[in-house]
Amino acid sequence: MKLLIAQGGGPTAVINQSLVGAVLEAKKNGLEIIGSRYGIQGIVEEDFVELHRLDDEKLNRIAETPGSVLFSTRDKPNQEYCTNILNIFQKHDIKGFFYIGGNDSSETIRIVLEAAKASQYDMKGFHIPKTVDNDLVENDHTPGFPSAARFVAKAMMGLERDNAALPGIHIAIIMGRHAGFLTAAGALGGAHRVYIPEQVFDLDHFAREVKETYEEHGRAILSISEGISGADGNPIITQFVKNEVDAHGNIQLSGLPLGNVLADFLKEKTGISRVRQDTFGYPQRSYPDPSPVDSREARQVGEQAVQLYTEDQLQSASITIKRVSNSPYEIRIEPVELEKVANKTRHLPEEYYDSEKKQLTQAGLDYLMPLVGELPSIETI
Amino acid sequence: MKLLIAQGGGPTAVINQSLVGAVLEAKKNGLEIIGSRYGIQGIVEEDFVELHRLDDEKLNRIAETPGSVLFSTRDKPNQEYCTNILNIFQKHDIKGFFYIGGNDSSETIRIVLEAAKASQYDMKGFHIPKTVDNDLVENDHTPGFPSAARFVAKAMMGLERDNAALPGIHIAIIMGRHAGFLTAAGALGGAHRVYIPEQVFDLDHFAREVKETYEEHGRAILSISEGISGADGNPIITQFVKNEVDAHGNIQLSGLPLGNVLADFLKEKTGISRVRQDTFGYPQRSYPDPSPVDSREARQVGEQAVQLYTEDQLQSASITIKRVSNSPYEIRIEPVELEKVANKTRHLPEEYYDSEKKQLTQAGLDYLMPLVGELPSIETI
Repeated sequence: MKLLIAQGGGPTAVINQSLVGAVLEAKKNGLEIIGSRYGIQGIVEEDFVELHRLDDEKLNRIAETPGSVLFSTRDKPNQEYCTNILNIFQKHDIKGFFYIGGNDSSETIRIVLEAAKASQYDMKGFHIPKTVDNDLVENDHTPGFPSAARFVAKAMMGLERDNAALPGIHIAIIMGRHAGFLTAAGALGGAHRVYIPEQVFDLDHFAREVKETYEEHGRAILSISEGISGADGNPIITQFVKNEVDAHGNIQLSGLPLGNVLADFLKEKTGISRVRQDTFGYPQRSYPDPSPVDSREARQVGEQAVQLYTEDQLQSASITIKRVSNSPYEIRIEPVELEKVANKTRHLPEEYYDSEKKQLTQAGLDYLMPLVGELPSIETI
Repeated sequence: MKLLIAQGGGPTAVINQSLVGAVLEAKKNGLEIIGSRYGIQGIVEEDFVELHRLDDEKLNRIAETPGSVLFSTRDKPNQEYCTNILNIFQKHDIKGFFYIGGNDSSETIRIVLEAAKASQYDMKGFHIPKTVDNDLVENDHTPGFPSAARFVAKAMMGLERDNAALPGIHIAIIMGRHAGFLTAAGALGGAHRVYIPEQVFDLDHFAREVKETYEEHGRAILSISEGISGADGNPIITQFVKNEVDAHGNIQLSGLPLGNVLADFLKEKTGISRVRQDTFGYPQRSYPDPSPVDSREARQVGEQAVQLYTEDQLQSASITIKRVSNSPYEIRIEPVELEKVANKTRHLPEEYYDSEKKQLTQAGLDYLMPLVGELPSIETI
């Protein structure tokens, strides 16, 4: 009787904390726990490592290493893939499946357990949450997000100071195609305006708002989601292709990244010449400076999943984080049904965002502040 | 009798340490020290702040704030501009000019002092070094570089772990148009290959080398300077415009950033589908996580400049950092003539780079290691 654990989707700065939380809890209960390399792909390929054989010191060093130490996968299994997973579980007498990932992972566990039930194979499955986008429903926030938000806030603080010294417009393009949480974290770093994917993005409004900001502050620093879209629901970048015609007269996508397109647009529309842009990119999910709150909670959700297994009350669950209070900051970790999390996307709550000012509300700032950990202090003359 | 200090060029994470080092040293000696806002532009506009009136606590908080607290300028003064500066100095009885910046700043001081000599105005001028590119001659390294190198190393460590979990090719484009020091710091973060601007960049070699790396490691992580150029001396990006023809049959610059161009090129040439890229951009010089060595040394060069003024042995100097020994790490701060630093660019020493392997030598790693401070440790299974 063994447990199996895997890591799926994009790595984060703290996903190894969740792994180690689960492994240490399994060891404490005398359970064997197998790690599958490259997510569920490693299950069907039987690419296993016996995690219970690792000593606690090594495990604690793993916990502090960013990225997915068992490696990951983008595989989204169909019914047949899940049947193959089940066959391997039966072969190795694996009775507990722990999958650390986003809402896809929750769905994978659900399908495998369904197949197990149909074959009358008695097993349990638990989803351990992880995202940097923070788009899992039923959660106040998910492990991985606070550290990514910390990077965004700190990087934006640096850009804000840089922009103060050499004034102009500075655009930062932030991860989160459908959820504006990470882009919102730019406000903690001093962004004058925040453009989230949940709001229709209008280019004319945008140019006017940036110009107003520039007139007020002598500069403008902007936190913009990679997922901003127009009223038609299409990414804003598609509005810049209309005049691009190749030698054969075909209209082509320009291929220019969003940051560059918006910088060129603002130069033309506002007449302001110093426009700079950064795309924060992969360092958002991998930069090795985790939020202490995130490290702690990521560890806890891993532990809780194995505790639920040993307590033997539930056959399956997705572990969630609820916020009990904001000052002092306090959370509650709670199991919910897998179905509640699978295939759904959470968005930035409306009360966190002022769509007139294009800025976070106090409620939005209060939500983010306890998550990101201590930020550097800024002193001006 | 007063001193005047200003900050020029791109801000860094520690340029305020140098400012505060100078101000505290001036206060210790009972000297008045004026700060000019927006570099030399603030001199001619008499946009001044009395820095000696700030208390030490506030000054120490300023020292730890990234960016240029007095703001900066890109102005490169001509003869007339320098004469205007001198007029203001005479008007305010300013007898010591301290300019924190790159080699341009050194040249500015030289021209102002020349004009002062011609007008028989007795004054001194000291250049306090600052660059993130590390391209000042006469220096082992310059304040600002170690913190930027720390960011590059840490961000690359994160990308390396991310790339291990989801294998493919990952390109990071690094600052330093003419000097490869920052790109070299990518090696500390685990980059498989390092492409510096000092070496001719050959696209065919590049594709072959990346393919070899991918075959050896199952993935490839690359640290590439924004300044890589072909045998003709032109930026490599110019080699990608030949097939881009607009509707009127005119050849056009595609405008695609280097990272995107190289990613597309590698996809096509190697057949490897997962190619990702990041441009590290402005966070390299502004991310608020300075190297402790850098913070300390930046403070020291500021102090030394004012000490040289009070010691009254030299009319002018550029402050430099020489390395005395590597273990234990020890430096010596030394004045050199302004002319020795002005208008020159330092390059990555040949012995630091293996141009066959496209990788740092041990000497190169030994050079960088003491500068960047402690890096996170990585544990694998």
